[in-house]
Parts: sequence; structure tokens; C-alpha cells
Amino acid sequence: MNTNQWTIGVDLGGSKIEVALVNSSGLLNDRLRVPTDSKKGYKAVLKQITETIHQLCDKNGDAVPSAVGIGIPGQISRSSGIVHYAPNLNWHEVNLENDLSKMLDKHVRICNDVRAATWGEWLHGAGKSCNDIVCIFIGTGIGGGIVSDGRMLAGCNNTAGEIGHMTIDLHGPECHCGNRGCFEALAGGWAIARDAQDMVKADMKRGKVLLAIAGNDISKITAKTVSEAASKNDILAKKIIDNLANVLIAGATAIVNAYAPCRLIMGGGIMEGIPQLLEKVEKGVKKYALKAATENLKVLPAKLHNDSGVIGAAAFALHSINKS
Amino acid sequence: MNTNQWTIGVDLGGSKIEVALVNSSGLLNDRLRVPTDSKKGYKAVLKQITETIHQLCDKNGDAVPSAVGIGIPGQISRSSGIVHYAPNLNWHEVNLENDLSKMLDKHVRICNDVRAATWGEWLHGAGKSCNDIVCIFIGTGIGGGIVSDGRMLAGCNNTAGEIGHMTIDLHGPECHCGNRGCFEALAGGWAIARDAQDMVKADMKRGKVLLAIAGNDISKITAKTVSEAASKNDILAKKIIDNLANVLIAGATAIVNAYAPCRLIMGGGIMEGIPQLLEKVEKGVKKYALKAATENLKVLPAKLHNDSGVIGAAAFALHSINKS
Repeated sequence: MNTNQWTIGVDLGGSKIEVALVNSSGLLNDRLRVPTDSKKGYKAVLKQITETIHQLCDKNGDAVPSAVGIGIPGQISRSSGIVHYAPNLNWHEVNLENDLSKMLDKHVRICNDVRAATWGEWLHGAGKSCNDIVCIFIGTGIGGGIVSDGRMLAGCNNTAGEIGHMTIDLHGPECHCGNRGCFEALAGGWAIARDAQDMVKADMKRGKVLLAIAGNDISKITAKTVSEAASKNDILAKKIIDNLANVLIAGATAIVNAYAPCRLIMGGGIMEGIPQLLEKVEKGVKKYALKAATENLKVLPAKLHNDSGVIGAAAFALHSINKS
Repeated sequence: MNTNQWTIGVDLGGSKIEVALVNSSGLLNDRLRVPTDSKKGYKAVLKQITETIHQLCDKNGDAVPSAVGIGIPGQISRSSGIVHYAPNLNWHEVNLENDLSKMLDKHVRICNDVRAATWGEWLHGAGKSCNDIVCIFIGTGIGGGIVSDGRMLAGCNNTAGEIGHMTIDLHGPECHCGNRGCFEALAGGWAIARDAQDMVKADMKRGKVLLAIAGNDISKITAKTVSEAASKNDILAKKIIDNLANVLIAGATAIVNAYAPCRLIMGGGIMEGIPQLLEKVEKGVKKYALKAATENLKVLPAKLHNDSGVIGAAAFALHSINKS
């Protein structure tokens, strides 16, 4: 592979667009970030993306990108390059791949943003050179991507790997998806905040450290507050983290038994903010998952951190055009 | 494909060996069944298998099988044809594929028995012509097989698809595997029997129909007893089935979100004994799984019933030798 083959990776979010110039080894050369004009509609965002790409290319005159990859928070068609639905952007059935290809006169490939991050970890991060990986990204929600026998799983409607919505507590709390007890409804950032707020409400004295960090506003207690309080040895925060670890062990055990990866890669804001979780999960999974499924299993932190989206989108596009 | 290409399918269990002559369209021509001499050790069972195959071939003089496929209740190596461990046969690290190939002078291919049944449903049953299927077999335990994008998932140690050990109730009852709240520990035949017995113990009056069917011996109440009592409109049996349906919905929802199949195929003794479960699961999954994952989903009963093991083992062997 030619390491001088440059690719553009775009991480398109509801609040910001990040555009990066990435080489074929997954090294990020330069980047630009702009707030998303999502309220101005589809065409305005297309214009923003193309202008930012042109600006980045102009700034890096020597690098002529061979393709553009875009990660999008939404449901993407398996083959046609159409975005079926992207709630944060308020897009329905837009032909993004085709429209941007024309505007940029380049190969454009789009995929779901979590899957883009998985491509990044697989080709250039903690999953490098491995044919069987599962990535779990825990931020506000929980998303995942699955590589099995050297292929990214897509499933019937291109939604395979929605591990945040695997039921792990059938009597558990309601999830935003309408089901109850989903992995995300117990261990996603929003669920951690909910549980922490409930525990502080139930015992204000015990919650005083958390409350103080949140400026005495219970509704402002988040996973970050918990992490901060735990670093100050707060007992309640440590208890919340222990509960969270148990839930993560149950979810990760289900995932390891279901997919049998060689590497379980865990990333996202919650894992980065509370790094002590990783070791607890590794120990728990090795104890509770089937012996045969864990014999060669490594539990690893995601390696690309906040860059996994842009590096992954670029890697996906390059892989995809080299294949076709 | 030549439909006159005969293959031998073997379903090797701890208590019986079933050998069938199957054509390339998956039609079973003839079969023999013998009790397994598992106590006499590995070599005695090898001899039984070869003798039964020879007997079946002699009986069907015109059909010369091109390959032999064997489904085994154990952990199989991904590529070397070695059985790592088969508890019901008390086998450890035996080179079955190689040993039988020599004895029979034929191509032999082995795989896990649940995966063999999945091959059967995929190539000749309810999953025919579909690239994305999940099979769930609910008997005493729960096993599964996953076909994604036209490939049977194997995973790192060839154990992918252990859906019976996906955690679906992290506070739930202990499982034989050492974890708690596994799908199997809530909805496998042994778990249904445990719950039914507990409910009868707690209220003997309410349990009188179940108890009578089991010959007034609580320890003899099984899933079959529940099915029989339900067909007599027994209220407790119906309640047990409703609880079971809710657990199956939670498990099936997790599976659909995780793998996004086009067809969810449900078979095994429990599904066949309590056929009303299928419709309940279909309704529940379509209500609770992610909309995008269920848009094209069909929930179907397994089609090959008790023959899925032998037909599947034969289909797997034929597919495998045609590929190589």
C-alpha cells in the first residue's frame, strides 16, 4: 500500500464537522473543524463539507486526496450511499454519496459514524492485523462495530452491531429506543447521570461531594462528575463506578459469547474518563464468559481516541475504493 | 449443482448416532440410528460410525457418497478438524476428521452440532437463499448459529453464536456456565422445568394439573408437562408460558439488534412443543427491537425439525469440499 495515498476523513456530527487529511497508514496530517449548519438544511451542510475539504486541501498543497470517507450519525443504506435517516441532522433519504461525489469530483464513501470508528480501530488502532474484533464505544449512548473473519458485519439492513440495544436486564429501566434494560440504558452516559442523580436525591448527605462538584445542582451531575468525585475518593462515586463495572462486565460477557472476538476494544468518553473500568471489565469477562470464547481474548482500550472517526472514515473510503 | 451427489450426514450425540444419506438438494433418502457406545471410548465410537455408514451405503447400493459431514456436541477447531472437547462423549483433543477420513477413505468434515443444524436451515430449510440469518435452537439448553453476509460466523476460537450465554438478566438465576442470567438459564428447557417446579412448590393447589400430569412427582415436571397442561387450559401453565414468551422476546430482541438478520429462525424441542411461542416472539421482537433492524425481518419456525442435524452436517460437508 502506498503510504503517500492521501484520503480525506470527515466526521459529520449534529454540532460539528471535522475534516482531516489522513495517509494510508492512518496518520492524521492536518484537520479543520467547523460548527454544523444543520438548521440551514441538507444543501447548506453539503456546501460546508465541500468548502472545508477544499480549504484543507489548499492548506496542504502537496497532498491530493484520492477519496473522501464520511462517518454519519444515522442509518445508512448498505450499498447505495443513501442516508435513510439521521436524526441529529434532520435528514431523511438523502443521496449523500452521489451528491458529494459530483460536487467534489472525487470518490466518496459514507458509513455510520460508529462503524467508521471501528474501521479506524481495525485498520490503524487496537484491532490492527486482527480478523475478529468487537469495538464498544461508550459515550452518551453505546455503539459498536463487529469485524468477524476479516469482514465488517453489516446485517440485513446495515444495522448489525447495535450492541447498545442488547437487552441485559429484562426488568431494567426504560431505554430511549422503547425497550427496557438495554446495555445503553444501564451503562451509557445518560444512564450513569440518571443513576447518580437518583442516588444523590435519595441521600443528599452521602452525595455532598458529587453535588458540590456539580455546583449544587443535582440535574448537572453527569458521568464526568462521578469520575471527578471518584478521583477524590468519594465513597458514593466509587460505588456508582463499581455498579457500572458490573453492568459493563455483564454486557461485555454477552458480547464475547455472542461474537467470540480475539480482541474486545473499548473506547468512548466514559471509558476514557474512568480508565479504571477497563481492568475491571477484563477480569470480569475472563471470569464469566465461556472459557472457550476467552482463551485468546484480549481486552484493550481504543487507541485512536477522538481521532477514530476521521481516521476511520478515511480508512473505510480507501479500503472501499481499493477493493472496487 | 448435481442433485445426484450423495453425502453422508452424521449427528453424533452422547446417547445416539444418527447417520443419513442426503442428496445435494438436502433431501434425506435413508437413515440408520444406533445407541452411542460412548463408555467404550473414542476408538469404539469411531468404529461404530464407520460401520453404520458402511451399512447404510450397502443398503443403498446405487448411492456412492462423495463426502461425510459430522455434527458433534463440543468445541471444534476452526480449521484442523480436531475436537478440543466434547463433554457428553468424554473426548479431549481428538483428531476426528483425520482419523475418520483414513478409516472411510472419504472426505470428512466436522463441525459443532448446533452449527450443523444452522447449515441445514440455511442451505435447505427456513433460511434458504438468504444471506443474513440467525438460528435459535431451544431444547434443554439454547444454542445458535449466525450467517452474516453469506458466511457462517466462527469467531476467534470457533465459538461465535453462543447466544444461549448472552446475559439478558444480570440479576437473574445462575447458569451452568458459571455466569448468571444467561438466556439459557431463563428460557432453556432446564430453566423452564426449574421455574415450573418452584411455582408448583409455592402453591400446590394452583399446581395440581401440572402435578397430576407429572404423576404427583414435582421433580418430574418438565417443559413438556407445562405444554401438556397449557393445552388443557391450565392457568399456571399458561402463566409459565407467558413468562417464557417475555424472556424469549427479550433474548430475541437482543439478538436481532446485535446481528440484524433478515430471518430469525427458531427451532428445537421447546419451540416445537409450545408452537404458540413463535407468534408471541414475532410480535414482541417487532415491537421492541430497533425499527431499522426489523424492517425486513421475518421470524420463522425451523423447517427441518429433527433432521436438521444430519441434513445440515451433510450440507456443510458438501459445501466445504465443493469450496476447497
